[in-house]
Formats: sequence, structure tokens, C-alpha cells
Amino acid sequence: MNIPKTSYPRVVIIGGGFAGISLAKKLSKQEVQVVLLDKNNYHTFQPLLYQVSTGGLEPDSIAYPIRKILKDFPNFHFRLANVEEINTVENKVLTDIGELKFEYLVVASGAETNYFGNSEIEKNSMAMKTIPESLNLRSLILENFEEALLTSDLNERNALMNFVIVGGGPTGVELAGALAEIKNGILPKDYPDLDTRLAQIHIIQSSDCILKGMSDKASEKAEDFLEKLGVNVWKNVRVTNYDGKTVTTNTDLTFETATLVWAAGVKGAAIKGLSAGDFVAKGDRLLVDEFNLVKGFKNIFAVGDVACMTTSEFPNGLPMMAQPAIQQGKQLGENLVRLIENKPLKPFEYHDKGSMATIGRNKAVVDLPRFKFQGVFAWYVWMFVHLFFLIGFRNRMVVFINWVYNYVRFDREARLIIRPFKKALKR
Amino acid sequence: MNIPKTSYPRVVIIGGGFAGISLAKKLSKQEVQVVLLDKNNYHTFQPLLYQVSTGGLEPDSIAYPIRKILKDFPNFHFRLANVEEINTVENKVLTDIGELKFEYLVVASGAETNYFGNSEIEKNSMAMKTIPESLNLRSLILENFEEALLTSDLNERNALMNFVIVGGGPTGVELAGALAEIKNGILPKDYPDLDTRLAQIHIIQSSDCILKGMSDKASEKAEDFLEKLGVNVWKNVRVTNYDGKTVTTNTDLTFETATLVWAAGVKGAAIKGLSAGDFVAKGDRLLVDEFNLVKGFKNIFAVGDVACMTTSEFPNGLPMMAQPAIQQGKQLGENLVRLIENKPLKPFEYHDKGSMATIGRNKAVVDLPRFKFQGVFAWYVWMFVHLFFLIGFRNRMVVFINWVYNYVRFDREARLIIRPFKKALKR
Repeated sequence: MNIPKTSYPRVVIIGGGFAGISLAKKLSKQEVQVVLLDKNNYHTFQPLLYQVSTGGLEPDSIAYPIRKILKDFPNFHFRLANVEEINTVENKVLTDIGELKFEYLVVASGAETNYFGNSEIEKNSMAMKTIPESLNLRSLILENFEEALLTSDLNERNALMNFVIVGGGPTGVELAGALAEIKNGILPKDYPDLDTRLAQIHIIQSSDCILKGMSDKASEKAEDFLEKLGVNVWKNVRVTNYDGKTVTTNTDLTFETATLVWAAGVKGAAIKGLSAGDFVAKGDRLLVDEFNLVKGFKNIFAVGDVACMTTSEFPNGLPMMAQPAIQQGKQLGENLVRLIENKPLKPFEYHDKGSMATIGRNKAVVDLPRFKFQGVFAWYVWMFVHLFFLIGFRNRMVVFINWVYNYVRFDREARLIIRPFKKALKR
Repeated sequence: MNIPKTSYPRVVIIGGGFAGISLAKKLSKQEVQVVLLDKNNYHTFQPLLYQVSTGGLEPDSIAYPIRKILKDFPNFHFRLANVEEINTVENKVLTDIGELKFEYLVVASGAETNYFGNSEIEKNSMAMKTIPESLNLRSLILENFEEALLTSDLNERNALMNFVIVGGGPTGVELAGALAEIKNGILPKDYPDLDTRLAQIHIIQSSDCILKGMSDKASEKAEDFLEKLGVNVWKNVRVTNYDGKTVTTNTDLTFETATLVWAAGVKGAAIKGLSAGDFVAKGDRLLVDEFNLVKGFKNIFAVGDVACMTTSEFPNGLPMMAQPAIQQGKQLGENLVRLIENKPLKPFEYHDKGSMATIGRNKAVVDLPRFKFQGVFAWYVWMFVHLFFLIGFRNRMVVFINWVYNYVRFDREARLIIRPFKKALKR
């Protein structure tokens, strides 16, 4: 790979998510050469993907060109590349655009959908971890209703209008709420020929509460909000299979649906060469110490979702969320400088800033370390926090305007069916 | 096809472009049943496609769900369908979702790119007539620069950084200007490792002036603006072939480029069953009389780009632009009601409201019937007119904000590479 040579040590970062970007920013003015590799040329603000899937926001509003985030930094190089293997012996990464040597490597490859080995669910379900996947889901939801218009088979029509979401975490809950608002506010106007009251939204959770990582109050209130919106919440039910038509569970319950959204699990995005060994924890995450150093290595680090850092409070590793990723990225940036300067490193300390989820208009739940609240005020806090963390002034403005518009008009207008891959375009 | 039966005569409209939508709106409160068929569920504001290709606007901002435009109208039905054939004997259309009988048929299928039979150019060039095509072009432009970084072959690098636009009409001129602004303002920051001054933008026009349909002053000034931006304008040069690497012309000139954008011609989007006969004019357009009735038929009409209505001023048919389409759609709406009520029809009269093109910031040319002007004021007029004709309040707001932002910051932020069709997603 064609990277200018310097006398600075080279830090290669794999992944431009929250962790990779915050690390790169910290290193921006230091005496290191930073090479960031990502298979996309944009950073994705994953917490808002569900709004793209449900027509509330346009895809470009929650993404940001990586080059632009880091354009003013000297010694920074971005390459659009898919990392295929890590050679830990020769200290190099192998990518689809060539090899690259490193002095320090930081794996920030994030998480991917975990189907727990069920290939039939993997084949037949929809995921929502990337922008193309979110656009794909948006298109499918709309296509289902167009198709429902065409059939006179009532069972088929109902299956097309039913949505089953597996997983009661923030992604599942937020998607279920948004789908319910579409069902209540938009479908009756868009499809006067269909009895859209028959459309059903199911959310299925294997344990006894939704939003498991949050407080009991948040969990109860979220369930309450979902039920008010007409979502069917199923607890203590585990989905066992989905053949593209029927969802089976570990109980007598079955669901007929054309759309299963799998939000039931994530795992670390493992990379060949660093995907097997005693440094790999449950869920394909890389075991790291308090300096984010991967177990057994001296110059290979992992940050964010792919890193498994255990603490007394989190014996299975810190939660796979934006906050630990951002904080680890920043801290590792400082530690890398200390390491190069032969100074002692500072151990990472996670500052839990709380968590939150939105269910619908005026309906959100917020757990802060000292306060827990739900409802309208929580909803405003949720919006403010998400606008604040979104990268880019233009994105913030456009998202804000869309939210105001959607709120005032009870609408979500970005509902185009765009699936260019259905038809092969040139090149 | 599953359309409710009524006692009203059924008008089937093929195409939800400017002509089809303005016709449907006119018929909204009349005693007719309207069925609008389109292969997309959205209306595309084609005049701004070039801004999607060049990262200035997000795709959803210039599109609008067709169902939403017409949601309050009784007796209106939309179906997402690809019309495969028209049976003019039995008065029915054959689509990929079934057959549909009609009392009246209006072909508003618009225009498609005309390669004048050159299949090699068709295979190797990029078009810009649809939203997926525009996103495809945007992705290619950005991918080219990512690739240019990787090669050490200077000829290949230059070819990746060169852009050849064939056709000096509004599409070609506006795209060339926008590309030049990207080259001057964004590329040097995004690609500090590349000498982006070497990037060349060529626009090739077969006749002796660009913007042929406009005034001499507009044409001269547009050329002047393009040259100020660093675009190479080639006149009296006709492109003869493009093998994916080298553009050959009818002169000694050749161009090495990885990207040829073909904006050199359009033709009517013909539909089987109505694509051959003495009613087909040059460029696959349907010959219509002053009532938009297709020659030789009593109940089949054509409006917009696909219709060829000749006048003394336009012996080859009205220009293929938004204004004739909108005006014909409205007028035909009124005439269909008259026809059903057995009243005499009113002949169509084209009101030329002028034409305009924008080349870059503060640089536009406007020809109104009484005034012709160029420069900053023309640029404001261009923006105002485009915002006015854009459908949807949210779209107008979002486009306006993007324009203000792009103007103030000399930027275009929607520059993500999103080509989901490169990788087959589920379903």
C-alpha cells in the first residue's frame, strides 16, 4: 500500500466507527503517522439507523465522510480497504488493496450481527447494522405494503403486513416504536385500499424484560409505551427458526410474517489472524487489559465493541455501545503517546454516562447515573444528546429540521424504495 | 390487477413524472377513476439529479413518495408496476403485476438516455437520468479518487482523475460546473496525497455552442463561466466511441478517462405495443395532436417528454423539459373531463416560461421571454425557481439548508460511497 514514509512510528487503525475516529482525533497532532482503514468511506452514526429504516431520516444525514472528519490533520492517511488478515508475526495487515506494515495496530472493527449459528435465520431475516442494510429494510417494508395490495389471499396479506422484531434491546425497541407510528399515522393515508389496522408489530424478547441493561423502571415504562402504541411485546419467548414465512419459538407461539428483523445479538467483527486463540472471549471479542492491549501482544490493541475489557462491574466485558468506544478511543490515543515516549500508561476507567432509548413521540426512557426519568422530558433529552453526538454541523441541522417536521406533521417522508442492487447498474 | 370497480370511466396514467403527476392532480376531484402506474414509488425532480451526483444534495431530498402527493384524492389508485405492453385493441395494459383495462390511457413514460445505437458507449459510460444512476455516478467519482491514490502508474492515475462529459445541454453544463467546484474546493482537502490539480474536466459538444436551446448570450456566458472554473470546453467535436479507457472523436482528439458521462441525448421511453407505427416520431416519441391524442387513436394520449407535439415554432416537437410536461398534464386533465362530458376540447398552447442553467456559485444564466440575464442575480432566480417547483415542504427546507450550508462553507457533504448492489444483500 502506497503510504508516504516518515520517521514517525505508524499506527494502523482498522475501522472508522466511534472508537476508531475518537482515537484518530486524539492522535491528530502527535508525532505518529496514522493510517485509518475502513471498508466504507463514511462513519456511520449507528444509534439512528432505525430512523433511516423507517423513513424518518435520510441516510446521508447520519453518515459523514471520514476524510472530512480528519482532513486538517497532518500525518493522517485514510484508505478505503477491506482488511482480510492480520499478520501478528511480521506486524502487517493484508488488505484487498495491498499489505501495510505497522508499529502499532488498533483493531476497532466493531460488531456484526450474531445469528448464534442459525443459518436459516441468517438467510431469511433482515439486519440493521449498516446504512445499506437499513435502506434495504426500508425498501422491504414499503414493498410489502405494495404487495399486500395485490394479493387476495388474506393469510398472505396479513403476513406481508406483519413485522416481527427479535430482540428487546434499544435497537429492537426503537424500531418497534417507529414501525408502530408508521402503522398508525402513515399507512392509513398511503394505503386507503388496505385495512392497515390488521398490520401487527411483534417484539420478541427471550428474557423477562426488555431493555435489559437499563433500570427496572425504564424497562417497565418502555413496555408500557410500546403497548400504548399497539406493539405486541412477547417476553420469555425465544425464536428458534424462521423459514421466510413462519417464525417458530420455544413455546407454542408461531408468527406468520414476511419480515423478521434480527436484533437479538451482536458479536465482535473478528479478523483472520486474530480470530482464534486464548485472547478471544465469548462473542468473538478480543480480550484486552486495562490499557486496551490485546492479551499476549505488545503492540496490538483493540477498542470499542470488538474489545472485551472486563471490570468488576462488567465481568463479561463493557457494554457494546458508543460510550465505551468513544472513551476507549480517547484514552488509547493518550496512552499510545505515553508508550512512544516511554512513559507509564494510565489504566482505562469507564465513566457510565447512562443510557437511553426512544419509543415514539414524547416517549423515551433515560437512565442517568443519578436520575432516571421517562416521558416527554426524556424524549427531549434523547434528541438533544443524539444531535450533540452526531458528527457535522450540516447533519445536525438537517436531522433537527426533519425531526421538527416529523413531529409537527406526524410524518416521515423519506420513504422511497431504492434498492439499486435489484437491477445491476453499470460497473 | 386488483383495482376497485366504480361506475366512473377509468383513466390509466403510465408514469409519475412532471406530466403524470400534474395530470393526476387535475383529475383528482373529477368523476373519473385514476390509476397511476410507475416502476418507482417516488417522483423524481430530475433537474437536480446532478446535485445528487456531486454530493450537494441527498437523494431523498429531490424525490417524493407518489402516494403522498395524491393521498387525499378519492378514486385515485397507485400501483408500483412496470408496464410491459400496451394492448391498443383490447384497451388494456400488461404489467409485471397483471393486466389492467382502461377507458382512457395516458402515456407519460418520459425519456430515457439515447446512445444512438452505440452499444459500446452504452456499456462503458455513466448516465444520470434516475436517482440510482446518480448515486452510482457519485460513488464512482469518489471511488476513482480512492483508486488514484493506490496506483503509481501516472497515466492510470490521470485517467482516474479525468472526467469527460458528452453533451453541452443543461445536464452536461451543470454537472461540469459542479465537478469543477468539487475539484477546486473539496479534492485538495480530501486528498492531500494526490496532486488534484492534474484532474481534468472536459465537456464535449458536437455543435458550435453549448446550451443550444438558449440565447446566444446565455450560451457564451455559460462557456465563459465554465472556463473560469477550469473546465475544458470542446465544441464541434463528436464522440465516436469509448472502450472504458479512451474516448475517440471525429477529430484527432482523444481523451483518456475512467469516467465518461453520457448526457448527449434522450429519446422517448417507448412501450411495446405502442412503439412502432406511423405515430412514432424521431427519437421514439409519440406523435400527438394539439389535444395530446396519439395519432390514429381515440382514447390514447401522450404527455411530456414522450409526446411529440409539433408547432410552427417547434417543428420537431416541443422541448423535452419540465414546463411542457407540466402544462400538457394540466391541460389534458381539463380536456379529459370535457371529453367525458361530450364538450369540445381546447387545443394546447405552450407558454414558454423561459429556461435556465446554473454553472456554479453565483454563476447562472437565465432566459426569460422578456429578459435575459447572467451571473449572481440569475443564480438567485435559478435557486428560487427550483425550490418553488420542488414538491414537498420538507424537501424545500432541507434543500434550502443544504444550499446555504454549501454556499457558506464551500462544501458538499453528501459524499458517501453507497453502492449496495456491489454486494448482494438479502432478498
